[in-house]
Amino acid sequence: MSYPAPVPVIDDVSLPQLVSMSEAVNLMEKAFKLHALDKLVAPPRLRADLTSGELMFTCGAIQTDHPVLGFRVYDWKQLDSPARSEMTPLFSGVNGELLGICLGPFLGAWRTGAIGGAIFKKLVSHENPSLALIGTGYQARTQLLAALAVLPLKAITIYGRSASKAKEFCQETQSLLQTQQLDAPELQRVDSIQAAVDGADLVITATKSSTPLLQEEWLTPNVHLHNVGPKFRESHEIPLGVIETCQTLVTDSLAQANAYENLILAGTDCQNRLEEFSAMLCEDQSQADGSALWQQRQQQRSYCCSIGLAGTELILAQAAIEKLKRNHQ
Amino acid sequence: MSYPAPVPVIDDVSLPQLVSMSEAVNLMEKAFKLHALDKLVAPPRLRADLTSGELMFTCGAIQTDHPVLGFRVYDWKQLDSPARSEMTPLFSGVNGELLGICLGPFLGAWRTGAIGGAIFKKLVSHENPSLALIGTGYQARTQLLAALAVLPLKAITIYGRSASKAKEFCQETQSLLQTQQLDAPELQRVDSIQAAVDGADLVITATKSSTPLLQEEWLTPNVHLHNVGPKFRESHEIPLGVIETCQTLVTDSLAQANAYENLILAGTDCQNRLEEFSAMLCEDQSQADGSALWQQRQQQRSYCCSIGLAGTELILAQAAIEKLKRNHQ
Repeated sequence: MSYPAPVPVIDDVSLPQLVSMSEAVNLMEKAFKLHALDKLVAPPRLRADLTSGELMFTCGAIQTDHPVLGFRVYDWKQLDSPARSEMTPLFSGVNGELLGICLGPFLGAWRTGAIGGAIFKKLVSHENPSLALIGTGYQARTQLLAALAVLPLKAITIYGRSASKAKEFCQETQSLLQTQQLDAPELQRVDSIQAAVDGADLVITATKSSTPLLQEEWLTPNVHLHNVGPKFRESHEIPLGVIETCQTLVTDSLAQANAYENLILAGTDCQNRLEEFSAMLCEDQSQADGSALWQQRQQQRSYCCSIGLAGTELILAQAAIEKLKRNHQ
Repeated sequence: MSYPAPVPVIDDVSLPQLVSMSEAVNLMEKAFKLHALDKLVAPPRLRADLTSGELMFTCGAIQTDHPVLGFRVYDWKQLDSPARSEMTPLFSGVNGELLGICLGPFLGAWRTGAIGGAIFKKLVSHENPSLALIGTGYQARTQLLAALAVLPLKAITIYGRSASKAKEFCQETQSLLQTQQLDAPELQRVDSIQAAVDGADLVITATKSSTPLLQEEWLTPNVHLHNVGPKFRESHEIPLGVIETCQTLVTDSLAQANAYENLILAGTDCQNRLEEFSAMLCEDQSQADGSALWQQRQQQRSYCCSIGLAGTELILAQAAIEKLKRNHQ
């Protein structure tokens, strides 16, 4: 059942058709540059406690030649409800007009995947890299697509706690790869995390695990560890001891990362070493030996504290809305 | 041009077709009862300053057997932009699902009109009442429809600063009256406010005037003055001297009225006398001589400080969304 709307309304099904993962990665690279120029405005979240529910607003603005502003909203008290909706409306920064609406949680995951893609491109060796993916949820899926969009992967190993869910994940991902026109080596399901990460250049953890998944001795010296799931003192995918062995520590949002008092890095030397990816990109551009710097980082071990830079959903929403409008003409 | 949406999207044109003014008045009577029972939750507004714009959220929740929550949002920095959009999404209080979206500013005006209707019904004499309407904007239009929906009006006089706009207003209102199936006496345009209010039982001021419109000696002893437009110390439609002559002073939201530090009533004896309409309705129900009390009030002069009780838009939005869903089945 559908109803007529005067503006584009984009759902979880149409989003990946409108903005491919490759395009989304390009948009996130643009977003990081805007962030470095302070043109990605994202104040702290707003909450409205309504007793029977609690609306949570993440607002932001993008200041380009086509400025936009908007927000993501959902009922925080319904986090565990399967029927819970998320909505991300986008307004023109020029005249306050509603440009379109994205519905569903996939916008955030597609964005987080694409942010990963921008980071993998810089921090993972491009010489026959291999990927280990721990987790089989929708965050794991967008991370996998992002890695395929930016790296010439020679091998992919996948571990999920439930073998049947992992199998299902591989089947569903295969069809998404076709629509995204991404070539992939065989998705190899393995029985243990140790087997998955053995020899991997990129390890993505995208689970809900509250207990550590990785041991230092399983990892290659130049692995990039991409921490999408829990990263808190009392609940984390990657133990502090492993993070400490990484030469490069990066995050997509230093402000948001440091705002978590219980972040696993909080109060440690690692927190002092944590760098913002957008700043690293600018440093790269400003230095003559910028690419040598990235090559060096690729040869070393690195860790990304993946947060989800606020405002980036709006850049993705804007691209999807503009594309749907063009298609509709 | 329209796009498919998975939920009802209601605009300014479809709203009055889905919820007639008569139905809207009934809904507002229900809303006042919910308000008296603290089942209409409306915390202070939230603002997100985004430099290039400023999103203003008015959130609320309705706690009935079908609980809902939602908010109205627009870019406050674009108040004067004709292209500016307003949006009011509604979520289920049971499972967080998005139920539908209202677009456009008319929801608020339709609601303010209907609130007026509920108040006119109680405070204006039903014996051949006559109406003077000062103002020819969309707030004036919904007030007029509300008065027609609840009172057996014998005469209607209309004054607008611009004669051509007033003429246009009468023509457009005539066609809306037909679609709303409301019978009305002739809409008489007059050349002065004094001529308009002469002998009127109900005077509605719905202008943007910053200078007082009324003089005490023009008014009948039992007139109900309904102040929709400016009501501030430095800018008001009705002077304090006139308000002071009213035996009954009422508002749809005491909390919101008292939150305005520059309200014309602020710090005066009138502020102490200001009563909340929902409380008066409950008092009416709890007293054996309730209806006598209202009859007495109708024989006296009364003043309404019309604010727009927060949360009431959501009740209207819910009714419109449910109606559209039924129509669509």
